[in-house]
Parts: sequence; structure tokens; C-alpha cells
Amino acid sequence: MAKTAEDFASAQKEIGVAEFFARNRHLLGFDNKLKALLTTVKEAVDNALDACEEAEILPEVAVEIIEMEPERFRVIIEDNGPGIVKKQIPRIFAKLLYGSKFHRLRMSRGQQGIGISAAVLYAQLTTGRPVKIMSKTGPTEKAHYFELHIDTKKNEPEIIKDELMDWPKDHGVRIELDIEAQYQKGPRSVDSFLKYTAITNPHATLIYTNPKAEQLIFARVSDVLPPLPQEIKPHPYGVELGNLLQMLKSADSLNISSFLQSEFSRVSPQVAKELCQVASILPTTKPDEISRDQADALIKAIKQTKIMGPPTDCISPIGEELLLKGLKKEINAEFYAAVSRVPDVYRGNPFVIEVALAYGGEQSSEEQVNLLRYANRVPLLFQQGADAATKAITSVDFKPYGLSQSRGAIPVGPCTIAVHIASVWVPFTSESKEAIAHYPEILKEMKLAFQEVGRKLASYVSKKQRVGHELKKRSYIEQFVPHVADTLIELLELPAAKKADIERNLITILEQERGEIKEIAQENTEFDENFAQIGDEEEKDEF
Amino acid sequence: MAKTAEDFASAQKEIGVAEFFARNRHLLGFDNKLKALLTTVKEAVDNALDACEEAEILPEVAVEIIEMEPERFRVIIEDNGPGIVKKQIPRIFAKLLYGSKFHRLRMSRGQQGIGISAAVLYAQLTTGRPVKIMSKTGPTEKAHYFELHIDTKKNEPEIIKDELMDWPKDHGVRIELDIEAQYQKGPRSVDSFLKYTAITNPHATLIYTNPKAEQLIFARVSDVLPPLPQEIKPHPYGVELGNLLQMLKSADSLNISSFLQSEFSRVSPQVAKELCQVASILPTTKPDEISRDQADALIKAIKQTKIMGPPTDCISPIGEELLLKGLKKEINAEFYAAVSRVPDVYRGNPFVIEVALAYGGEQSSEEQVNLLRYANRVPLLFQQGADAATKAITSVDFKPYGLSQSRGAIPVGPCTIAVHIASVWVPFTSESKEAIAHYPEILKEMKLAFQEVGRKLASYVSKKQRVGHELKKRSYIEQFVPHVADTLIELLELPAAKKADIERNLITILEQERGEIKEIAQENTEFDENFAQIGDEEEKDEF
Repeated sequence: MAKTAEDFASAQKEIGVAEFFARNRHLLGFDNKLKALLTTVKEAVDNALDACEEAEILPEVAVEIIEMEPERFRVIIEDNGPGIVKKQIPRIFAKLLYGSKFHRLRMSRGQQGIGISAAVLYAQLTTGRPVKIMSKTGPTEKAHYFELHIDTKKNEPEIIKDELMDWPKDHGVRIELDIEAQYQKGPRSVDSFLKYTAITNPHATLIYTNPKAEQLIFARVSDVLPPLPQEIKPHPYGVELGNLLQMLKSADSLNISSFLQSEFSRVSPQVAKELCQVASILPTTKPDEISRDQADALIKAIKQTKIMGPPTDCISPIGEELLLKGLKKEINAEFYAAVSRVPDVYRGNPFVIEVALAYGGEQSSEEQVNLLRYANRVPLLFQQGADAATKAITSVDFKPYGLSQSRGAIPVGPCTIAVHIASVWVPFTSESKEAIAHYPEILKEMKLAFQEVGRKLASYVSKKQRVGHELKKRSYIEQFVPHVADTLIELLELPAAKKADIERNLITILEQERGEIKEIAQENTEFDENFAQIGDEEEKDEF
Repeated sequence: MAKTAEDFASAQKEIGVAEFFARNRHLLGFDNKLKALLTTVKEAVDNALDACEEAEILPEVAVEIIEMEPERFRVIIEDNGPGIVKKQIPRIFAKLLYGSKFHRLRMSRGQQGIGISAAVLYAQLTTGRPVKIMSKTGPTEKAHYFELHIDTKKNEPEIIKDELMDWPKDHGVRIELDIEAQYQKGPRSVDSFLKYTAITNPHATLIYTNPKAEQLIFARVSDVLPPLPQEIKPHPYGVELGNLLQMLKSADSLNISSFLQSEFSRVSPQVAKELCQVASILPTTKPDEISRDQADALIKAIKQTKIMGPPTDCISPIGEELLLKGLKKEINAEFYAAVSRVPDVYRGNPFVIEVALAYGGEQSSEEQVNLLRYANRVPLLFQQGADAATKAITSVDFKPYGLSQSRGAIPVGPCTIAVHIASVWVPFTSESKEAIAHYPEILKEMKLAFQEVGRKLASYVSKKQRVGHELKKRSYIEQFVPHVADTLIELLELPAAKKADIERNLITILEQERGEIKEIAQENTEFDENFAQIGDEEEKDEF
């Protein structure tokens, strides 16, 4: 019975990546049937939008979900992107850990090369059906049609069908998956996901047919594509010893000084010199002759040296104007405001925080603010409690801005607040990409953005209150006008017929004295600067 | 600038498993420096204990942590297990997704073949140093010494050193890692982890030297090894269509009936016949001729058919007696109780819930109960809020059992409660194995176990209270004895010298009437059965 080392040896074997993720599907967002439906749509839509933007095509993405039998759905996503060349189709859809986005530093929705193939794996496990792909790369090409399985032992595609087809479309990809799932409406549904996606992607048209055969069209409101973000080199502040050693080993540079300048961003000849000096390394040393201890000294030197922040053209924020457009088309409200912060950096990765707000309208004033969280334009629907945005919003005092709030809670009021982080590498708390980790730099930027947009809100809410108060006071005074007129007629012994004139005059005086309501409403934003004081007063008013 | 499908194609490439996990190290429990230290120790200790038990050796595991420089630690773990044969050493430690535990269904601490190699990867990334392994498989063998790196591009071991050595030990493994880490004491420290490990592994001796060079020895209190759990076949209730299709394709059986009987547990000829009947499949059909639709029908038939629960010798619970021994040696308390439930099943996987409790002693009565969570004898120190045990304990009303508790909260009182799930496949909420998912069957068993152990506690707490009350009443009556004696002397005109006798007699009467305290304390557990009623009374007393 007792086992020896030899017995153990015979049982040891390699575990397939696909086998691993099949068993650990919760890591990739397939923990239950509701979430599986959303994750499948999300991965396909993310890829479609990424591909369209890289190819500089205004995206048009159609999503269709059909209930085939109880808890079995067919999900079809079709885009007008550049298409995928024949050779790549099997591996992109039927091999986990394969893609173009993992090895580069540039903002995109996908990061890991695992999302869509995980959906294919999930489909295969739950319904046994292959993924069906149609891809066309140009108007004169034929479309390639594939049916694919994943060989889970080898993590390689298994081609069931490979055909040429006619497809009345210039270019694009269509993917069809049969999965075990559940569909329901609500804040974490596919319906919400697409609506929220429309807000941060005002340049995209989304056409959605839900399982109840209702069609929703989220039409684009901007014909301008977001500027294509540039790929950057890693910033020295983000490098670890292990990575550095590997880079040194496979380096082409002649010496460590040129290595540092060519492999990292923001390392000028001067900075390279300084780093070598601090680390006591000759700048002429060959990279592959740098020892582990020297590399360690280099890492320590980087930490001590002031290096300019990374370039920020690797990220493409949405911008205040487009954020407002996006929000206006999806949320009915009275007042809108948006803030796009300047880029900041965490662990060598640049990022931008943007916040937009829609206030009033039909939104309930009794409920918590509807907090919409986004990462690289993708809505995050799960794990709000774990997200940096939640921590940041609860650390801001919203009462001066006209919302009510319990200490440490999300504010309450008729308000939707969208917060967006754009980055080359979004630090998610888990691989299912549901929440942003609590990096201090990110928390700080979020907090500043909430405050900035809060001040804009304060100005509006405060004016609205002043207009309201003024109207109330006037209608109050106006009640007395006829009585004052009567008294004047009596006192001055005027003819009763003058009453109408007197009343008119009194109202004219009143208007001159108290000013036009229109003017109050048009008062300029110089007012904004006193927001804090006004905020304080409002707060006192409440109690 | 705009990219074509061809441009994309050239950028697509394979992503290495090791690269993936290096970047996503939080998935494996290496999200920060504190946790990295704990995870490294945990993975090595888990493997050591698993190996010793499989080889039927009473485990003796030494853990040593040395602070080399600020935030750099050397972690050394040495066991007396069976050792690892030379050929396997590189892959076990320097290849992710390699091991013996993934492809079998049997209770063990490790499951995935990823833990210890993830620690090696983390060491390499943060300090650039190789893992150092010493392994010896028998008294007459020499030891093999290896220094290994992981080639992260290929996910293959890179051998730096491979030597034969003398090692004054019969058999065992020694692993040495240099990692970036932080050390601190407290409930989530290595210190706590080892102390809690000692509770559920009373057959193991752990010798721990912490970075402050303090040595703690957790000596074994049992010389009996846990019975070696048996490997089982999957139960039909846990199988999904995708798995079934794959099994059918590679099956050796001649027909579907014998396939079902040989590949699954608890499928008798009768059950196989019934399944085929319900699914409208001829029992003589060859497995590889079963179509997708037939397999689907088979899955549906399984769901409709009553099949006996899986065998439970694949799990080896600790048992009430050893749980008590373990708890007594590590927690100083007045009262101990333990409950080991009978096995139950979730999704075809058998599991056992065990709960042990230590009450009183030096434990604070003002704080929440110290809830210790275990999975397959391994303490879980993170994400208590997300764990099924937390949900279960907060759903039980502990007031009748003598602890105070706010609605829906963890009870408060001088108490440690350990809850253990033993299963062939523990459903963790994430790959870092921190919390148990909320399966209804698991929640139910946990709740019943808490209630059962709660009743034992109620009986003790209630007796303790009665003894307390009795002592109070007596001392109260005793105060009057001298006065009663005086009055009796006066009334009956007795000589004053008799007073001492009278007092003695009065106390004797008192004792006969109210019973001996000793007897109260020894009252039998028949009392337990009225716990609920008594509990209610106590509750009323409080208000």
C-alpha cells in the first residue's frame, strides 16, 4: 500500500492548459450559467471592437441570443472588422493563450489571449457543439467558414469543417456558439452590458436581439474613431529582477547603457549613465555579462533615480465631449458633466481616469447613485464592492455637491456616475476581469475626478435650488399684491379702476428689485469657485 | 496606420503558461509580499504532508525562514517523505501544470500541480535566484542536489546544477527558495498557519524557525497515520456533456453499457440498463458510435435517474477524537467538543464536514468567535467573508448555545470553532484556494455540524451557569445560618455552646436539600436533549 518515490514518479504527468481552465472555469468568468452568457458576449464584443479600431473601421457589431431549449442558448456575434486570415482562425478561437495583445504594452480591451477561446471551451463542455466561425478579409475574397473544437489534452484546435463560402459582406467575422446558460434582465444582464458599452463607445453601433426577440439598436453618435494608441516600451519603474535578467540574456544591444535606452521608455543617455553609476556597473559592460547581483543593483538604482513618467500616447481616453455624448444618448437626465484627468502612472504603467455624471430626470432620488465602472471602455458588472472605484467614491464627501450620503457609503440621489480607467495594463483583481485593484495612484486619481465632477454638480444643484427658492418667495409676495393695491387705493383715495394698473406697477417693481429668474439661471460659472462654501451652507440648511 | 487582417496575423503568437501566470500571479496567491511568504510555505508544507501520508511515513516537516536583507527572505522546507526520483525533480519544481494529483479523484491537499512551481516562479521573478532542491529516496542512495530555473517562454525546467551529495538522512526532500516578501505575526502569518496546521494534522510534527530565530515545535500527539484515501471514478451526477463526449471517444469498452459501468462509480448493470432505456440507446452500441445528441440524451437520463451516492473511502476525515486531540494541544480552553458528520455529495463529489470547538480559558469573551477554516486539513487564512463556512455560521442562531450574536453575524464569545471540509475536489472560489464556494449541500452540512457542536456547548455552558447560580444561592443562604442558629437557641432555650452544632446541622440539611455541587456538575448528558428549551430560558434571562 505505502508508495515509494518510484510509484509517485509513474503517476506524475503534464496537465493541459485547456484541462486546467476547463476545471477552473470560474477563473475566467464562467462560474455560473447567468455569468457564462454575459462573459461569452463580452469576450466576443471586446474582440470585435478592438479589431475594428485597430483597422480604423467604425464598428458595427450585431449580437443575437436565441433560446434553443431550456438553459441552452445560441449566441451569435457579427462584426464589420478586418476579418481574420484563414491560417489564424483555428488558433485564435480554439487554442487558449494565443493572441496578439499579451506581449505588447498598449491599451486594448483584451489583454490575455484567453477570453474567446475560453467561451469556445465552455460551449464544448456544456453542449458538446463546435464553435462556428465565418471570416472575410476583403470584398474580393471568399469567406472562410470553420467549425472548431478544442483538443483539451493538447490545447490545440481540432478542425471539424473548413469551407469557402459566399458572404454578402465586405469584411468581418461572425461567431456562433451554443452554450448552457441562463438569461435574465437587470443590472448584470447582457442587455445592461450592451447599453453601458454604448456609453463609452459612442463611435460604435451595436444591434442587439435578445432571447425574447426584442431588438435594441444602440446607434453611434460620433463618426470619429478613437485615436489609435501607440505601443510603448516598459517603463523602468515597473520592471522586476526576474524580467530584467531575462531581457539581459536575450538582448541585442552592445552594452548595458544602450540596452537600457533601447529596451525601456524614458531612459535617456544621461539617465542610463546615472543608473550605471549608482549601480557601480561600467556602461560598456555587455548585457549578457551582467551578473545577477549587478542586475539587482540596477533594480535598486532604478528605485532611487528620478525618471520621467512614461509617454501617454499608448492610451486613448474617451475625452469629456464624447463621454457626455455617450451618456446623453443612454441616460435621460437634466444635467450632465464629465471630467477627463491627465495621465498618471502606477508601477510604470500610464493610466487615465475619466468620470461622467448624469443627474436628475427619471432617476430615483431614494436610491444609491448608479455607479458604472469601466476598464478600457468595457463595462464591469461584477464585484463592485471589491473595485477601487467603490473605495474612491465612498471616500469622497458628496454632501457639499448636493447628494445625500451616509459616512463611508455610496452617495444617494437621482444620479448615474460612470468612472473609466484607460491603461496599457489594467490591474484587475482576478482573471475574470471584474474589479480594479486598489493601487494608491489609481484611488487618488479617481477621488480627484469624483471631486471635480462633484463640483460641477454642486453648481447645478445649487442653482436649481436657488431658482426654486426664488420662485417660491415670489409667488408668496404675489399673493399680497392685490391686498397692497387695495390698501393703497384706500389710503391715497384713488379710483378703484386704478387697481389693475397699481398691481402691474407693483409686480414691475418686484421684478426689478428681485431680478429676473432667467438671469439667475444664466448666472455664470464664476459661481463654481465658491462651491465649497455654498456646499457647506446647503449642508447646514439640511439639518 | 490602419491594420489589415494580414498585419494582425503576423502579431498573433502563443503565450507561455509560465508567462501568463507570472503576470497574473495574484491568481495563485502571490498578490503581495505578505501573502507571497505564506503561500510559499503553504505549498511546500502541503506537498510534504501529502507525500509522507501517501508513503505511510509519519511526517516531520521543518520550516525555516531567514531574513537575508530587507524584504528578502530565504525559505527552507525539509521533510522526511519518500523523496523524489531524480528524473522527476526538475519538472515537479520548475514546470507549471505538472503533477500527479490533477487527473485523479482522491482527497489530497494539492490538486492542480501548480503550487510549488508557482513559488519557484515567484522566487525567480523577484530575486532572480534558482530553487535549490535536495532529494533522497532511500538510506542506501545518494542525495540528488539540483538548482533550477523555469524557462518562462517554454514552461520547461532549466537545470543550473545537478550533483550527487551525501545527506545524513534516510529519505526526504529539502527545498530552498529566495523570495521578496514581508514577515509579520498575526492571524494571517506563517506562524498562525503552522499552528492551525498542527490542529488538523495531529499525526505530524512541525518544527518552525521564524525570521526572529524563535523556534516553535508542534509535536505530534498521534502515531496513527490517517487512513490512505482510495481513488474513485467520477460519479455520473458530476459529468458534463463535453467530458462525456471525450470519454466516449477514447473508450476501450465494447459497448455503452459496459462503458457506463467501468468508467463511472455506482453504475450497476441495472442502472446502466435504465440509463440506456431512458436515453433510447441500445445498450450494445459501441461507445465511439454514440452521437452528440445521444450523449446529450444520456446526460438528461442521468439527471432523471436515482443513482446511489459515490463511495466515500476516497476521503479520510480527521475524526472527532483526533480533532479534539489536535485542538487541545494548540488551544487552551475549558471545554472541547467535536463533530464529524457522515459523508454527503455535491455534483457527484463526496465530502465530509467536521467541526470542533474550544470554549473558555483565556479566550476573550468580548470578541467574535475565532473561526478556523480548513480544506483537506489545510488552514484557509484569507477571504473569510467569501467562505461557505461564514455563510453557514452566520445562519445558525448561537444564542441558545450560550454565545451572544447579532442577527446575521458571527457569534461573540470565548470560543474557537474549527470547520473542516474533506473532499476529493474542494470547490474553491479561486485558484489561490482561499474560500469554499457556496454549494447548498456544503452549506447544509456545515449548518448541521455547527448546530450539533452548539448543542454540546449549550449543555456545558448551561451546567456552568447552574453551578454558578447554585454557589451564589448557597453562599446567600449560608449568610443566614448563624442568625437562624441564634434564633433557634433563643426560641428553644438551648445552651449557647450548641450554636456550632446547630450551624453544622443546618448546613447538612441545606446540602441534602439542594444537592451536592459535584453531583450537579456530573449530571449526565441526557440533559442535552432539552437544550433548546433551556436555551430559550437563558435567552429570556438575558433580557
